[in-house]
Amino acid sequence: MIPVAIMGGSGYTGVELMRLIAGHPELELVAVSSGQFKGQAVDQVFGALEGAVNLSFVDHDARALAQGAALVFLAVPHKAAMAAAPDLLAAGAKVVDLSADFRIHDVAVYEKWYAPHSAPELLAQAVYGLPEFYRNQVKGAQLVANPGCYVTSVLVPLVPLLKAGLVEPQGLIADSASGVSGAGRSAKLGLIHGEVHENFKAYAVDGHRHTPEMEQELSLAAGAEVRLTFTPHLLPMDRGILSTIYARPRAGADAEAVRACWQKAYGEEPFVRVLPPGRLPATKEVRGTNRVQLGVAVDPRSGLIKLFSALDNLTKGASGQAMQNANLMLGLDETAGLRELALTP
Amino acid sequence: MIPVAIMGGSGYTGVELMRLIAGHPELELVAVSSGQFKGQAVDQVFGALEGAVNLSFVDHDARALAQGAALVFLAVPHKAAMAAAPDLLAAGAKVVDLSADFRIHDVAVYEKWYAPHSAPELLAQAVYGLPEFYRNQVKGAQLVANPGCYVTSVLVPLVPLLKAGLVEPQGLIADSASGVSGAGRSAKLGLIHGEVHENFKAYAVDGHRHTPEMEQELSLAAGAEVRLTFTPHLLPMDRGILSTIYARPRAGADAEAVRACWQKAYGEEPFVRVLPPGRLPATKEVRGTNRVQLGVAVDPRSGLIKLFSALDNLTKGASGQAMQNANLMLGLDETAGLRELALTP
Amino acid sequence: MIPVAIMGGSGYTGVELMRLIAGHPELELVAVSSGQFKGQAVDQVFGALEGAVNLSFVDHDARALAQGAALVFLAVPHKAAMAAAPDLLAAGAKVVDLSADFRIHDVAVYEKWYAPHSAPELLAQAVYGLPEFYRNQVKGAQLVANPGCYVTSVLVPLVPLLKAGLVEPQGLIADSASGVSGAGRSAKLGLIHGEVHENFKAYAVDGHRHTPEMEQELSLAAGAEVRLTFTPHLLPMDRGILSTIYARPRAGADAEAVRACWQKAYGEEPFVRVLPPGRLPATKEVRGTNRVQLGVAVDPRSGLIKLFSALDNLTKGASGQAMQNANLMLGLDETAGLRELALTP
Amino acid sequence: MIPVAIMGGSGYTGVELMRLIAGHPELELVAVSSGQFKGQAVDQVFGALEGAVNLSFVDHDARALAQGAALVFLAVPHKAAMAAAPDLLAAGAKVVDLSADFRIHDVAVYEKWYAPHSAPELLAQAVYGLPEFYRNQVKGAQLVANPGCYVTSVLVPLVPLLKAGLVEPQGLIADSASGVSGAGRSAKLGLIHGEVHENFKAYAVDGHRHTPEMEQELSLAAGAEVRLTFTPHLLPMDRGILSTIYARPRAGADAEAVRACWQKAYGEEPFVRVLPPGRLPATKEVRGTNRVQLGVAVDPRSGLIKLFSALDNLTKGASGQAMQNANLMLGLDETAGLRELALTP
Repeated sequence: MIPVAIMGGSGYTGVELMRLIAGHPELELVAVSSGQFKGQAVDQVFGALEGAVNLSFVDHDARALAQGAALVFLAVPHKAAMAAAPDLLAAGAKVVDLSADFRIHDVAVYEKWYAPHSAPELLAQAVYGLPEFYRNQVKGAQLVANPGCYVTSVLVPLVPLLKAGLVEPQGLIADSASGVSGAGRSAKLGLIHGEVHENFKAYAVDGHRHTPEMEQELSLAAGAEVRLTFTPHLLPMDRGILSTIYARPRAGADAEAVRACWQKAYGEEPFVRVLPPGRLPATKEVRGTNRVQLGVAVDPRSGLIKLFSALDNLTKGASGQAMQNANLMLGLDETAGLRELALTP
Repeated sequence: MIPVAIMGGSGYTGVELMRLIAGHPELELVAVSSGQFKGQAVDQVFGALEGAVNLSFVDHDARALAQGAALVFLAVPHKAAMAAAPDLLAAGAKVVDLSADFRIHDVAVYEKWYAPHSAPELLAQAVYGLPEFYRNQVKGAQLVANPGCYVTSVLVPLVPLLKAGLVEPQGLIADSASGVSGAGRSAKLGLIHGEVHENFKAYAVDGHRHTPEMEQELSLAAGAEVRLTFTPHLLPMDRGILSTIYARPRAGADAEAVRACWQKAYGEEPFVRVLPPGRLPATKEVRGTNRVQLGVAVDPRSGLIKLFSALDNLTKGASGQAMQNANLMLGLDETAGLRELALTP
Repeated sequence: MIPVAIMGGSGYTGVELMRLIAGHPELELVAVSSGQFKGQAVDQVFGALEGAVNLSFVDHDARALAQGAALVFLAVPHKAAMAAAPDLLAAGAKVVDLSADFRIHDVAVYEKWYAPHSAPELLAQAVYGLPEFYRNQVKGAQLVANPGCYVTSVLVPLVPLLKAGLVEPQGLIADSASGVSGAGRSAKLGLIHGEVHENFKAYAVDGHRHTPEMEQELSLAAGAEVRLTFTPHLLPMDRGILSTIYARPRAGADAEAVRACWQKAYGEEPFVRVLPPGRLPATKEVRGTNRVQLGVAVDPRSGLIKLFSALDNLTKGASGQAMQNANLMLGLDETAGLRELALTP
Repeated sequence: MIPVAIMGGSGYTGVELMRLIAGHPELELVAVSSGQFKGQAVDQVFGALEGAVNLSFVDHDARALAQGAALVFLAVPHKAAMAAAPDLLAAGAKVVDLSADFRIHDVAVYEKWYAPHSAPELLAQAVYGLPEFYRNQVKGAQLVANPGCYVTSVLVPLVPLLKAGLVEPQGLIADSASGVSGAGRSAKLGLIHGEVHENFKAYAVDGHRHTPEMEQELSLAAGAEVRLTFTPHLLPMDRGILSTIYARPRAGADAEAVRACWQKAYGEEPFVRVLPPGRLPATKEVRGTNRVQLGVAVDPRSGLIKLFSALDNLTKGASGQAMQNANLMLGLDETAGLRELALTP
């Protein structure tokens, strides 16, 4: 068994990592930290993990976590992640960072949207951890920047189409909606049941931090600067992201051409499901899994192409993708620990 | 008290009408029909109405319903509505039709999207019942075609902007999501809790029947033919529609200009709330009410204008608006029976 | 219009009071306080109230609130309520206290379950505000202690049966479940959507503070000391309490006898609905209303009587009942402002 | 790989079986039948199974299903199950029946609650499939009657206490609540989202069919006839049962004694979790798993013992337990395919 550790185990992405590691045939969790629950038994704080995680939460001490762990998952907020990464790497651990700190190549862009960067020297070596696009680089990486949840839901459908020139890189619109676990496990008034349940609304409409990350990767795919219009919404549910993307077709591209392009890009991918005509992505069908569902339609009135993608924001949108990256970095089967199917219902 | 009747009282719009009539100071429900529950006491079928509606469901007999009713609400499906309307009008009753049968002026367009029209001679006299735009015509109408739920959520934000020339009439996109009551009260597999709960997905992506109705009114407002890209989604909740609309600004229009235009159009309207900067529409804030909330943002990357509207699909989206029309047709205070506020939470 | 004020307007009971006052034909809200939102416009904090409440939150200053208010609702937590009540009464205002501070006649019992009592001299004059039992006393009261939500759901079905001797006063069990708004509007981890949604569990199983209040009133009804076994549960929904109560029949009492007893006690009551055989209480049918639904069955195996009651914990369980009390204290129609029906769905 | 088949694959228990078989290391699904979806690809009907089940639904033909299957799961309704079982057994297949048809030893009791029995000769050989109590018999069985969902939630906490004489066998009350998937996947009005969401109510209060099954096993455990008062409720959620059970202690039994008794009975059980003091069962912590959580409290007022159990009605309450039984019947590791943990959140 390969020893791994988690810095930040009491947020939803941390708990999801523990769940996935518990079901992984070759990984063993040797340490997990939490500021809030330090000293408490993990499975008394998270009853779902009872009997599966026999550890107590420890301090956020990067060097201690790196001791005896071949790989450390950073499931702490941005800023805390870049503060810890250099020590983890120096101690010889591989690192999968679930925060935004190493996702954006241009430090000026990062600093505009987030905060001053304390470890810019690591940006060059950080690999953007979307395995469907960067599998080989991930395999050799010491530090992987795990993509944002909305970002994954937008890049998976769009990148192959931009590379193939099937859609215009200009005028792209991504209208997305996420379950509330995307906002984390914290005691905020906006997250309580009474505010979320039986409610639907947009937020961060003037600019969400996932935008520059999307634009970076879309521009690389298009070979030209892409400006994206992105609107996130909050769904009255725990898990799931659905993105509806509007794009102008190029060169007479239609739904069949989009599906063929996806099939070519993803036909061998274990976690991307291209749906046949007549079916559309539904978040419930991928809940708790590392899957992305893709669907497409052409609007008969405007000719716009509508792309649909569904994923679980905590799995393929965060911890499942982190596990997929870890599998690659550690030379394991990419799907190890990630073969579960969604519950019905 | 003015006597009114309902044809089709056992769907969600019919029940909502009964709820509103029960709280109305000047209307009295004298008859309500239902094929499914004929002969049963209304308040034993719908426990929420107990003590407030002391009637039993009767047959779908138009002439009988029109007897002694000054106004009849048609809450039956399309086709059934146009079959009943001539008899109701001939019997001297005013009619508010909640179906699609009299919404579309061009019978060819109607027949393309719906079915052969059995009463095309009434189309010329039917008034499109969006009181914020057609108040005076509604006041004098015998037959009012009550707008669709999605349609209202798209027209209220867009029409004044198109009339004022603040946005381009081409390239409009409406991305909407509705609670499941919009699909009616019927025993269908796709509506059961296990299929809807904790799920989010798009549907009717190749063309929803509300599209031609939106285009008719948007074209009238723009003075030019408008083609709209419309995508409906199904929310895991009972009530509420949120529409997110993307439009290209004209002549340097910004959020402030949009708000000013709305304020001018709706400043005196009892049911339209233009939200100040910093607030966005939320379906929960209008649940069970006849209100529409409007919000706006300009995307800083693309310059696109994002419009947001929230309403309750069964109230302002259906039965509340029908009551608003009925009040106007009967010479009553337009807000009578419609002053309730949404529950928190 | 009669001026009223609210101390504590930013919790769910406070917002519910504002909603009810806004729809009340004879009351006018002249002041509302909040520590958290002091200085902010009420309807910008609570969008559902927009246009209906044109006030800003003020300080928790009892004397200032009592100025110019004929009646003040105390919607602050226990302890804060008993600290404010003497000043309010001294200033000449009538008081409806929604906290527990004046519900329990025996100060020793109160202090065992809650805290030292700072105004025990007021206990003798405080009237227990369950109008169905204490209507005449409420009419003459200066200070009314509004009952607890669970308590109302247990007392309404049981009290008449105990008075009539239809059930044994010993061995009573109340198994209740409440929507999460009963826990208030506060930023606690246990209340966030991810913890509540798609979850069901018991809590406070060693003794909930509502127990002594239930026992006080049940003992008075039975004319003997009653010990109640009470178990609350948390439902994944916003509003609603359902209580299932197990009682041993006396003297051959059956479901028909229970219904007849209820009919006698509540036949003229505007807010108590005794359901006919074949129907059972459902929280959704009373949501947002001041109603209690009652149902009964006799277990064919054990002979135990099962009583069922449904109410909305924020309306008949809190603010609606407070309004009912206020109406009585101010000499108004008891149902004024409380005639709304539940939404379907 | 051991070949297995399912008769009745389009209900929720059938889909759950397919999900579990897909994740099982030693079982292979070779055939699955459905009347409704016959001829359709399984993973186009149930998108969550895409890529994991590469079969189309076949006819309900018992002999054909038994061909080449070592074991057949009967996931059809009662009556259909007893019609198919003789043929399956005659063809040499082992059978796990998820219906009620072989659970009740006394054919007269079965026929009183259900229907005339068409295969009473098989009752003697059918083993009641609660492995925690009948493990050895299940290992040798050809036909296993899989227990009811409510039944499992009541028997697991109570049986060891009755055997040990810690609680009185008389006066037991089980107050249970279930997610709506317990009612199956069918297009019924009472199951649609609008009827279930934000609602809570009791049902079948005059006698639920699971009662005789509970009484049979409780009586065997107590060595005396047990009469149980049972009340089921419907929760606004997809999955999960919580039972709250009231029992009179014997011989001074307290919470510690209950926990010790459970620990002795279940200390080595892989799927029963006895919670420590201070924690209570929560359905979300066992969602999608084969676990049962147990908790206990003693009511300080009445001295009654309160037992709490949580399980997933479709997993430990149905298909997971069926898989546990199949593992035992086939000589496999009892936990094979059943090690998943619940999602958080």
